[in-house]
Amino acid sequence: MVQLYEDERLDYLLAEKGMQIIQSPSVFAFSLDAVLLADFVSVPIKKGKMLDLCTGNGVIPLLLSRRSNATITGVEIQERLVDMARRSVALNELEGQIDMLHHDLNTVKLDQSSYDVVTCNPPYFSTPSKREYNQNDYLTIARHEVYATLEDVVRVSKRYVKPGGKVAMVHRPGRLVDIISLFRQYKLEPKRMQLIYPKKGKEANMLLMEGIRDGKADLKVLPPLYIYEEDGTYTKEAETIIYGN
Amino acid sequence: MVQLYEDERLDYLLAEKGMQIIQSPSVFAFSLDAVLLADFVSVPIKKGKMLDLCTGNGVIPLLLSRRSNATITGVEIQERLVDMARRSVALNELEGQIDMLHHDLNTVKLDQSSYDVVTCNPPYFSTPSKREYNQNDYLTIARHEVYATLEDVVRVSKRYVKPGGKVAMVHRPGRLVDIISLFRQYKLEPKRMQLIYPKKGKEANMLLMEGIRDGKADLKVLPPLYIYEEDGTYTKEAETIIYGN
Repeated sequence: MVQLYEDERLDYLLAEKGMQIIQSPSVFAFSLDAVLLADFVSVPIKKGKMLDLCTGNGVIPLLLSRRSNATITGVEIQERLVDMARRSVALNELEGQIDMLHHDLNTVKLDQSSYDVVTCNPPYFSTPSKREYNQNDYLTIARHEVYATLEDVVRVSKRYVKPGGKVAMVHRPGRLVDIISLFRQYKLEPKRMQLIYPKKGKEANMLLMEGIRDGKADLKVLPPLYIYEEDGTYTKEAETIIYGN
Repeated sequence: MVQLYEDERLDYLLAEKGMQIIQSPSVFAFSLDAVLLADFVSVPIKKGKMLDLCTGNGVIPLLLSRRSNATITGVEIQERLVDMARRSVALNELEGQIDMLHHDLNTVKLDQSSYDVVTCNPPYFSTPSKREYNQNDYLTIARHEVYATLEDVVRVSKRYVKPGGKVAMVHRPGRLVDIISLFRQYKLEPKRMQLIYPKKGKEANMLLMEGIRDGKADLKVLPPLYIYEEDGTYTKEAETIIYGN
């Protein structure tokens, strides 16, 4: 049995595969963004090392463990979230594959240029107002660039990915220009991009980007992904990613 | 009556509106790319000045004249193409609105920072091999970065567009990273992007980008545009753009 605190709850992560994760609406609950990133990124199947920055409650490492036998390290600055993530890892008996570090990604010490893959679902918003700060520190830190800016995340990804290794992120389309500029500045050449649209006829509201360290310039833009049908139900593609069936 | 030379032919440009253009398969024939760009770009309706670089046989100025009363200047380095473009302008009685300049865009002298809109369907490919050079100079120059690189085109666009004015280009997705990097470098902030997919499930094969000189960072990604249905006929959206109905 797993210990749950306060308003924590146990949610299914991939309904079909019986994986569960500890969440809390007031502390951290994973979003579709993380699920899409874990599905999008290219992973080594049999062995290797992966790193997930801003790992939160560990949703991306948990999902990646279903696609790869590589070891996965998650880095998260909020102790409470690391604790949730570690209990979820134990609950799913993945201690042999996933390691959670409680650390600031800007100062964490890992083997440089050694990871096959680095993933990150970073905070989307720039520094919050004082009012947001005071309301809920957990969510503010997870959502705003308080402790890590987009450039920090890209710089640190570059530091730990090996030459030829992959760095993948999810973000809002409004930051596409920043992501592309920063990826190129840090020699993570953008190679695969996918845009996510809430439904047909709407503007994109999410973007998935994968770069290769020291890669040759040539971006592929994958077919668009729609999340909802006109009637508000998930599209077949979204359902396959979310429920794994 | 219009004079046609050698293998030139007269094609309808927008079937429904009776506009015609002079083309030649061995010299220059416009592509879907130009039609999509002319439809995509934001234009001033009643007055203003627009500039089209690498104008070829003038397809973009001709199409823009149906959307705007602004004056339109086309710049083209190949004299033969300028001659075709001027005859098409005369044929459609647009001499009062469209002016074609035979000039290298890198050295042309126009009023700086004065245009509301600058468009360009630039050469897509880097410098050609000797073999391609010898086969057909007209097509080589139109398609390869012989006389104008992507950076030349962006630099010159920046030179002539006014602050707050728009610069729009069409290119291959493989150059998206270059376009975004160069737009930002030259202070043409990317604001609207659309990806064109040949059909459902395929990777994008064209990209439309519009930047605003000195604009604020915030890119919108428009709904994707599919060109063909599964059965190879045009989609309704593509048909509307191509035939104007």
